[in-house]
Amino acid sequence: MDDRWIAERMSRIDASGIRKAFEMAKAMKNPINFSIGLPDFDVADPVKEAAYEAIRAGRNQYSVTQGVPELRSKIQEAVDATFHHADRQVMVTSGTAGGLLLAVSAVVDPGDEVIVFDPYFVMYNHQVTLVGGKTVLIDTYPDFRIRAEDVAQAITPKTKAVIVNSPVNPTGVVATAEEMQKLALLCKEKNVLLISDEVYRAFCFDRPFSTPAEWNEDVLVVDAFSKSYGMTGWRLGFAHGPTRLIQEMAKLQQFSFVCAPTPFQHAGVKALDQDLTPHVEAYRRKRDLVVAALSEGYDLPYPEGAFYAFPRAPWGTASEFVAEAIRRELLIIPGNVFSRRDTHFRISYAVGDDTLKRGLEVLRDLARHCERS
Amino acid sequence: MDDRWIAERMSRIDASGIRKAFEMAKAMKNPINFSIGLPDFDVADPVKEAAYEAIRAGRNQYSVTQGVPELRSKIQEAVDATFHHADRQVMVTSGTAGGLLLAVSAVVDPGDEVIVFDPYFVMYNHQVTLVGGKTVLIDTYPDFRIRAEDVAQAITPKTKAVIVNSPVNPTGVVATAEEMQKLALLCKEKNVLLISDEVYRAFCFDRPFSTPAEWNEDVLVVDAFSKSYGMTGWRLGFAHGPTRLIQEMAKLQQFSFVCAPTPFQHAGVKALDQDLTPHVEAYRRKRDLVVAALSEGYDLPYPEGAFYAFPRAPWGTASEFVAEAIRRELLIIPGNVFSRRDTHFRISYAVGDDTLKRGLEVLRDLARHCERS
Ligand SMILES: Cc1ncc(COP(=O)(O)O)c(C=O)c1O
Ligand SMILES: Cc1ncc(COP(=O)(O)O)c(C=O)c1O
Repeated sequence: MDDRWIAERMSRIDASGIRKAFEMAKAMKNPINFSIGLPDFDVADPVKEAAYEAIRAGRNQYSVTQGVPELRSKIQEAVDATFHHADRQVMVTSGTAGGLLLAVSAVVDPGDEVIVFDPYFVMYNHQVTLVGGKTVLIDTYPDFRIRAEDVAQAITPKTKAVIVNSPVNPTGVVATAEEMQKLALLCKEKNVLLISDEVYRAFCFDRPFSTPAEWNEDVLVVDAFSKSYGMTGWRLGFAHGPTRLIQEMAKLQQFSFVCAPTPFQHAGVKALDQDLTPHVEAYRRKRDLVVAALSEGYDLPYPEGAFYAFPRAPWGTASEFVAEAIRRELLIIPGNVFSRRDTHFRISYAVGDDTLKRGLEVLRDLARHCERS
Repeated sequence: MDDRWIAERMSRIDASGIRKAFEMAKAMKNPINFSIGLPDFDVADPVKEAAYEAIRAGRNQYSVTQGVPELRSKIQEAVDATFHHADRQVMVTSGTAGGLLLAVSAVVDPGDEVIVFDPYFVMYNHQVTLVGGKTVLIDTYPDFRIRAEDVAQAITPKTKAVIVNSPVNPTGVVATAEEMQKLALLCKEKNVLLISDEVYRAFCFDRPFSTPAEWNEDVLVVDAFSKSYGMTGWRLGFAHGPTRLIQEMAKLQQFSFVCAPTPFQHAGVKALDQDLTPHVEAYRRKRDLVVAALSEGYDLPYPEGAFYAFPRAPWGTASEFVAEAIRRELLIIPGNVFSRRDTHFRISYAVGDDTLKRGLEVLRDLARHCERS
C-alpha cells in the first residue's frame, strides 16, 4: 500500500508511550508489574450471573442507541437524585473512552482548543487531535492541584472545552470541593464546556468525591463501570449532561459504537447494587502501604484516590530511573508518557499484597542506590 | 448550554432517516416489522457457553488492542489460507462499524473524497463526514450492479478510498467475481484504497461470495460476527489489510474502542466453528417466498444475498408508499434513507414465516391498490 494513504492526523498522534514501556517489559522474566491501569479484582458473582442470564435470554442484539431502558433509567434516577438539574440526560456508552470520544467529536471543531491538566490521561490529547483540535496543557506540578486561575489565563476565544479528571490518573490526587467549585463556576462564566472524567470516582480515600456538575448544570460527566466493578473488558460506561449535547453524542453513537455490548448493559443494572466498600478499603490499605514505604527517600504527592501514586524519581530523569527499575524486574511508567515533564513515575498499586511489598522493596532500594552513587 | 458548543460537523450529519421510520412505527399497535437489519436467530448455545466460560474464568478486563491472541490468530490463519498475501494482518474490532470508523479515521483527511455506491449503508456517509471528508455517490439504479467504468469516471486526485459492500444493504444484490475483479484492479491501477464491507458475506444464495481482496493485496476488509452469528449486540468484528494500515487503525483503537468486549472475543473463537448452513438455507427459503410473492406487481431487483430485498414502489414515491404501508401496520424503510432517490423500499425478510407471509400479503394488496387508484 501507499504510505500516502494514511491521513495527516495520524502523524500527529504518537500513541507509543505506554507501548514502549511494555516492549521493555517483554524482556523481563518475572516482572513485578506496577504498570497496569486496572483493578486486580474480578466482576462480582451476582453481576456475572446477570450477564449469563441476559445472554441465555437472548438479549444479544443491538440495543437502542442511548442504552437499554432498565439501565439508563436506573442511572438517570441516581443522577436526578444527586443533581436535581432540569436538563440532565443520561446515555449508556462503551466505557469512559467511548463517552469521551463522542463528546470530543460532538463539540471540537478543527482549530478549537481544549484545556487539559498536565499530567494527563493520554487519551484526551489523542482524541482532540483526531478531530483536528489542539490540546492546551496546564502544568499542575509540583502539588498536582487544579487552579481555576491558571485555567482562566489559558482560556482564549478558541477554547471549546476543559477536561478535568479526579481522582487523577496518573497522580492519584483528588480535587477538593473548593477547587472543583471554582473550576465549575469559571467554565460557566466563560461559557466553556467542562467535561469531567469520573471513572475513578468510587476510589476516594480521604475526602468525599466532588463533581463539578454540582455547581454547573452544563457539565458533561463521563463515567464507566470499568474500574469500579472490575469490568474494563466489558466496555460499559455512561455519560450525563445537557440534553442537546447528549443527543448529539447519541447521533454519533449510531454510526460508531452503535451500542454498548447489550448483555453487559443488562448486567450493569445488577452491578449498580453491588457494595464497593470492600474494594475501596482494600485499595486504601494498599495506598497506606505505598505511602509508608516511600515516605523516606521519595517526594510523593499524597495519593488520595484511584489506585495510582506518582512519586518523583529520586535521581536522574524519570525515564532513566524507570530503565533501572526495569533492570530490577520492576515495571513502572515514566512520567513523560503522561506529561511534558519527565520527573515522576506512575505506580499502580492495584496488585496483590505480595507483589506490592516486593515492588516497594525494590523502590526503597533504588532510592538508596541514589545515595550511594 | 450554548448551542454554539456543538461542532460544525454535526450540522452536516443528519442521522434521522431510520429514526423517523421508527417514530412512525411507535403509533403502530401490532406492526409487521420488515424494518430490522439483523438476523432473527439467537447466538448458538455452544457460543453462549463459551461466553459464560470466559466470564466465569475472569476474562473480563481489557484485551490487547489488536484482539485476544486465540481469536486473532484463528482469523489470521483463515485469512492466510484464503489469500496467501505476504502482508495481510488481522485485527479484532468492535463490529464492522468499529473497523470502518478506524479505517476512515486513519485514511481520510479533510477535503478527501470517498466513493460510495448509491444506494448505500448510511454509516459510510456519516463516518466520512465526521472526519471532514466528502462522499461521492455512484448511482447503481436500476440493476444495482457495480461498474468499474463508473468508478473510473468518479476518481479525482482527491479520491482517497472506495467503499464497496456485497451482499448489499439495502438491495440484497451480490457482486459477481467479474465485477469485483474489475473494481479491485481499477483501485490498484489508480492507487486508491478499496474498503470492502463483508458483513453479509455468509448470506449468498445463488453465487459464491467474491471479495476484491482476491485481486488486490491492498484491499481493506471489514467484517463482523454480528449478522452471521446472531450477535449484533456483542460488538465483535474484525478487519484485515496491509500491516501499515492495520497498525494505524490499532493506534486509533487504543483511545477509542480500546478493545472489543473481551469475553465475547473468547466466545468468538468458538463461533468460528459453528455451521451456518441452516441459517443460510432458512434465509434462502424466505428469499424465495419474497420473490414469489412480489413477482407480480413489483419490479424487484433479484435479491441474491443478505436478508434484504429492495423492490420499486409500484406507485407514488417510496415515502408515500411506505406511509400507506405503515397505515396498514407494515413497517418498511423508504429508499431515501439509503439513497438520493426515493423510488424503492427496503424489506428485511429476517423474520418468522408467519410474519413474512402476513407482510407479503399486505404488499400484494398494496400493489393492487395501485391498479385500483
Ligand atoms: C482517567 C481515565 N479515563 C478513562 C479511562 C478509560 O476507561 P474506560 O475503560 O471506561 O474506557 C481510563 C482508563 O485507564 C482512565 O485512566
Ligand atoms: C452494510 C453494513 N455494514 C456494517 C454494519 C454494521 O455492522 P456491525 O454490527 O458489525 O457493526 C451493518 C449493520 O446493519 C450493515 O448493514
